[in-house]
Amino acid sequence: MSKHIAVLVTDMVEEIELTDPVKAYKEAGHTVDIISNEGNRTINGKNGDEIQADRGIDEVNANDYDALLVPGGFSPDLLRINPKNSEFAKAFLQGNKPVFSICHGPQFLVNTDLLKGRELTSFVSVRKDLENAGATVKDEEVVVGNLVTSRTPDDLSCIQPRIAKTFGKIICRS
Amino acid sequence: MSKHIAVLVTDMVEEIELTDPVKAYKEAGHTVDIISNEGNRTINGKNGDEIQADRGIDEVNANDYDALLVPGGFSPDLLRINPKNSEFAKAFLQGNKPVFSICHGPQFLVNTDLLKGRELTSFVSVRKDLENAGATVKDEEVVVGNLVTSRTPDDLSCIQPRIAKTFGKIICRS
Repeated sequence: MSKHIAVLVTDMVEEIELTDPVKAYKEAGHTVDIISNEGNRTINGKNGDEIQADRGIDEVNANDYDALLVPGGFSPDLLRINPKNSEFAKAFLQGNKPVFSICHGPQFLVNTDLLKGRELTSFVSVRKDLENAGATVKDEEVVVGNLVTSRTPDDLSCIQPRIAKTFGKIICRS
Repeated sequence: MSKHIAVLVTDMVEEIELTDPVKAYKEAGHTVDIISNEGNRTINGKNGDEIQADRGIDEVNANDYDALLVPGGFSPDLLRINPKNSEFAKAFLQGNKPVFSICHGPQFLVNTDLLKGRELTSFVSVRKDLENAGATVKDEEVVVGNLVTSRTPDDLSCIQPRIAKTFGKIICRS
């Protein structure tokens, strides 16, 4: 069954952590909305790629989505500036909907105040913040709960099958 | 009396948060070492400027310095990857030596595990991490303790007189 997946992202995103999962989602028949500060804007990635936003954070409702992806890079840092982004993510965690997050992505999720007691992983630089937020941080390629997290772009091949498993359908491209 | 000031920094630094204080330090007769991953390397700033490192983190000893400056940008995130950087900063806080930090700089200081009970400020995006580390975060242009912190480049004109006060000599350029 086709799922509707929200991708929350802004400038300085590590592009492959968005494009790789989104391609896999779409190939598996799911629909994806790229959500940013505003709809109809161009997101400037960390490595110079441009990504088109579909919707603005003010236009969306978490109830309309089945899962959330938060890619890494420095986008998660910048997402923390607007509390509406944290409120949006909070609704997924509170509703026990899957949240996929890679690299620096979990840094943004700290702002939900809902990481206490959760097991996850991330890029090494933000692990102290996740621990201070009450999470248990593991140094593993992928850690699976309602939160499905991974450490770096090198782990993408590992996180993809877990995304597939979450939705009960193979959406891994490898 | 001339002081010896360490500046801990790596790529993606917000250049003006390094160059502005460093210029003020030097004009006041203090000496400055730009310390990075390695000595004799070029640091690539967030806005494209190149900054020459004087010393590598493996070559320096905190005992040789009177104060520490940690500029912002995304350099503080990257500094967190190497625990030797946190150990270096820890020595300044433990020794009650002045630590100046601007914007995202305090994010790096979380890794010292020594922010509990301290009052400080920072760029808005990392305040949650400072609170979770036990600090009291104020939304003020400059917050002064052993830690002298500021929020953004716009606050540089305010932090400079505080730096001057810390060393008992006017080193503010404005």
